[in-house]
Amino acid sequence: MDSGQTDQGAGEALRAEALRQLRSTYGPAVLEGGSGGAGLYALLGHVGLLERRCRNPVLVAASGSVGAKLRLAEALGRRETVGLDLVAACVNELLVQGALPLFFLAHLAGGGADAAGSLQIVKGIAKGCRQADCALLGSGVEARGDLGAPGERHLAGFAVGMVERARLLDGPGNARPGDAVLGIASSGLHLGGFERAQRVLLGAGGLRPEEQPPELGCPLGEELLRPTRIYVRAVRALLERYRVKGVVHGLAHVGDGGLAGSVAGVLGRRCVARIERAAVPRPPVFDLVQRVGGLSDGEMLGTFNLGVGMVAVVAPFYAEAAIRRIRRAGDRAAVIGEVAEGSGPAVEVA
Amino acid sequence: MDSGQTDQGAGEALRAEALRQLRSTYGPAVLEGGSGGAGLYALLGHVGLLERRCRNPVLVAASGSVGAKLRLAEALGRRETVGLDLVAACVNELLVQGALPLFFLAHLAGGGADAAGSLQIVKGIAKGCRQADCALLGSGVEARGDLGAPGERHLAGFAVGMVERARLLDGPGNARPGDAVLGIASSGLHLGGFERAQRVLLGAGGLRPEEQPPELGCPLGEELLRPTRIYVRAVRALLERYRVKGVVHGLAHVGDGGLAGSVAGVLGRRCVARIERAAVPRPPVFDLVQRVGGLSDGEMLGTFNLGVGMVAVVAPFYAEAAIRRIRRAGDRAAVIGEVAEGSGPAVEVA
Repeated sequence: MDSGQTDQGAGEALRAEALRQLRSTYGPAVLEGGSGGAGLYALLGHVGLLERRCRNPVLVAASGSVGAKLRLAEALGRRETVGLDLVAACVNELLVQGALPLFFLAHLAGGGADAAGSLQIVKGIAKGCRQADCALLGSGVEARGDLGAPGERHLAGFAVGMVERARLLDGPGNARPGDAVLGIASSGLHLGGFERAQRVLLGAGGLRPEEQPPELGCPLGEELLRPTRIYVRAVRALLERYRVKGVVHGLAHVGDGGLAGSVAGVLGRRCVARIERAAVPRPPVFDLVQRVGGLSDGEMLGTFNLGVGMVAVVAPFYAEAAIRRIRRAGDRAAVIGEVAEGSGPAVEVA
Repeated sequence: MDSGQTDQGAGEALRAEALRQLRSTYGPAVLEGGSGGAGLYALLGHVGLLERRCRNPVLVAASGSVGAKLRLAEALGRRETVGLDLVAACVNELLVQGALPLFFLAHLAGGGADAAGSLQIVKGIAKGCRQADCALLGSGVEARGDLGAPGERHLAGFAVGMVERARLLDGPGNARPGDAVLGIASSGLHLGGFERAQRVLLGAGGLRPEEQPPELGCPLGEELLRPTRIYVRAVRALLERYRVKGVVHGLAHVGDGGLAGSVAGVLGRRCVARIERAAVPRPPVFDLVQRVGGLSDGEMLGTFNLGVGMVAVVAPFYAEAAIRRIRRAGDRAAVIGEVAEGSGPAVEVA
């Protein structure tokens, strides 16, 4: 057997493993055996989504990518978790519309001879899809044999979810004075603000990924690559429980724009969110970024999540019960403020 | 006004134009005004797809990219049509499942200061979506302001379509001896085989994009960048007309694997497709590739579409009527062969 054949055999083994990863995310709605590269997802047959709940279903679709975080993962040779970020970037955008994800597709190109590295990324995507309770229908890797295509790796993701039209959380204006602002904990930096933090710490700050700054309990590179949390189960716990009551008035995924910008996005023009600084559990990486970058509190609030990855604006009567439901779904949450009348949309921090 | 503000103003004008391009593809099913980057597509409300036709709807999803063709378009500064290739790469994969596209998302990153070039690409994508009768829900350009993000451009597309489960064309085995093989004309190279042709002509062959080889009626670069045909209207004409009769036994999008490999994909193990060489209208670019590359007829057939971009295997009684319907939808088609019993799946050319 010459080395060409060995490579081919290894490539096939990797593709078979990629396919196993995909299948680990399949529920009964996924139809296998279609020819070509397309994925098949049955809306009614097995899961009965439409019959049971949806009279007027709206499909919600979002694309996303991981940009600078992928490049850091490549540089550090740590590709296991960047797929979770990719899934989070897409499905968290569905959630804020009130939709729950059905399926996910990824487009992965490049990687040259490092097909094993591409497989690591696919494994991360599959893990993210399992956390998001959605099917990973294809990655452009197993079907077209792109594992190990030449060039720098590029990665884009695409999620499709569904929501009953009457329960669509479409845009601001449903939040009311008196509503409670719930914060669901982030795992650290997340994707929003990642590039800024990377510039501050590794660029201007001159820190190295392998060093451990005093604020952190781990090397900096590990902290930076910690994956974005996927809030599907927490939000599902809210939306499925409070289906009829209209308890959830708004959901904000804290991304670019930081905590201030993202919360403002779900407020109407006559609403202000008053957030208590002390109520927000702030991971130490933000202290590090603020110290090294010399950033003001306002810049921090307008750029980073500061410990809150997802915000739910809910009727105050249900706030404590909602928090208990989120905790049972595996996330940490707390009341971090309230909505008041004012000249909005704006966020005030006290 | 300093140049920074001018740039910002120009960037906003480009984003506004990108949004106009997106809107040019919207039908009544698209819900606008959602917060964030997600797109909304109502399945029932306006279009009544489910009520009227689908009892057991299956969503079909495909991703695609344009790889080497994008790089050539960038090198030649001709970015108007590569978006059509991207749409074709995705929606033609839906068609062969029997599905018609609902919506499309594109992920476009990079391009540096050349935001106008990114807009050209978006315009091509929007044009492709109009040809495919599907909505372009987002491009990562207008919502997140990525127009002009740094770095080399990368482009990925995602299409979602729908098909009633009973009419899913899932895999080979429906073609029967006696069936007619219809070929729908390609526009030239298409994406399958593009890289090989590029290597043969511009690489080993040493031709330059601006020269006009004797076989072609235009410069080589123009021929190479001619966009892949989008077969939505032709296939819709077949599928909607022959809904109940089961006339269409298989559809093959001729991509990697060329005409031989792609047609073999819709045949069962006891079927052979006999294709008449003379019945296939062969665009001159294939003669050029064969001459410059010194490729055998077998290599040509296993790599390129040779003038047939989509193949429909149909009951012979309906072949002529199907061809008329395809022509009325704007495509050229002909009977290019028939299915016979034999040791298959295989394609024989006489």
